[in-house]
Amino acid sequence: MHFTSEHRHDDGSLEREFILGDIPGILWTPASLAPLILLGHPGGLRAMYPRLASRARQSLAIGFAAATIELPGSGDRPRSPDAEQARADLRRALAAGEPVDEIVDRLVIPLVENAVPEWQSAIDALLSVPEVRGPIGYSGGPIAIGTRLAVVEPRIAAAVLFAGSFVPRSMFDEARQVTIPLHVLLQWDDEGNDRQLALDLFDAFGSEEKTLHANMGGHTGVPQFAGDDAARFFARHLR
Amino acid sequence: MHFTSEHRHDDGSLEREFILGDIPGILWTPASLAPLILLGHPGGLRAMYPRLASRARQSLAIGFAAATIELPGSGDRPRSPDAEQARADLRRALAAGEPVDEIVDRLVIPLVENAVPEWQSAIDALLSVPEVRGPIGYSGGPIAIGTRLAVVEPRIAAAVLFAGSFVPRSMFDEARQVTIPLHVLLQWDDEGNDRQLALDLFDAFGSEEKTLHANMGGHTGVPQFAGDDAARFFARHLR
Repeated sequence: MHFTSEHRHDDGSLEREFILGDIPGILWTPASLAPLILLGHPGGLRAMYPRLASRARQSLAIGFAAATIELPGSGDRPRSPDAEQARADLRRALAAGEPVDEIVDRLVIPLVENAVPEWQSAIDALLSVPEVRGPIGYSGGPIAIGTRLAVVEPRIAAAVLFAGSFVPRSMFDEARQVTIPLHVLLQWDDEGNDRQLALDLFDAFGSEEKTLHANMGGHTGVPQFAGDDAARFFARHLR
Repeated sequence: MHFTSEHRHDDGSLEREFILGDIPGILWTPASLAPLILLGHPGGLRAMYPRLASRARQSLAIGFAAATIELPGSGDRPRSPDAEQARADLRRALAAGEPVDEIVDRLVIPLVENAVPEWQSAIDALLSVPEVRGPIGYSGGPIAIGTRLAVVEPRIAAAVLFAGSFVPRSMFDEARQVTIPLHVLLQWDDEGNDRQLALDLFDAFGSEEKTLHANMGGHTGVPQFAGDDAARFFARHLR
């Protein structure tokens, strides 16, 4: 992992861009050694930067470090022709009101297969940074990546998952294997979201402690207090 | 309203039992003037006292007064033969796995009709106590009483509702008329609860700000952190 830029903020926190192999990422660290929250997102670091930076500031404010990496096939990373085809097929099927299950499998299953080992490499590298320690939390979407990470990566101790659609049916079997504490956020009035599928997936998670917070405000309108609740969830489980 | 007992706690708060007409109740007030939270419950003040006192202490801890009254037909109050009959019919129907809609109507609709004006009289009386001021929050079940109060009582500014079953179908029309901020608690794994009905009712509420918090722990196992979240909801809306 090579740091490619460094910016010290007024509050003493440090924001650094890095490259891990060919994967770009960003690390935010507070002034002292802190547990790490991984910020999941749908891909496209540059476009997502304002929202990621805001979520990172929320993590820093309660004493956590935060980090994110670009997803395979997104941002400046090489495109996958299969994924691009699946994305185009999905848009067309959604517009035509056709079933999308098979397309979602083609799009999301390879994404999970490729992204999860990259997140694990990122965890290896990030834990070697002097300001960062475990335990680690995962926060965000896609929920399929967060679910797989929760199953296969023992260094992740708790997860805040953003319920969204486009979950392969096979993910329900994995959800049953999740045992870490979960805090699931659902935008109740997100019209692009399959609410019943999100509720079914929440029901499937095997965790003894799982909480669903459903709020109004549309796809991107997660209320400030919902972010505060999620922050307190991490404070309970990562300290 | 006549106070019948008074107990000053070590933290300076005051716990007083009262009688309003023939309705017994309890008022908890902190050392200084505070907004009031009404504690709803399923009836039976004596049996419910430990949980009500615990919820009252949670309200006091964040600077609110709290009060509760006995429901019509519960505790030491005169029984209603119709309600007793409906309760017996409900137990029998549930045990036999028979439909309960008509029985729920017979049980809950008169309860709401009788209890809501009593809560409103209690609000009149409680607001005349020097340590108590508005705005007022309603917290608890039965969700049918909380819903009706949210529609008809303008002094109630926000409500934490405990999602439970036994909601008359007519309550859905009332739910659409609710506009105050709502925070709905659902015990996801409460086997005695009709989860889908609770989700449908949450969906029906007309409030622009409504939040559903679903947790594990069974019927009476609301986690401590869920109570803390509800307290913060009141702090946001009653201050």
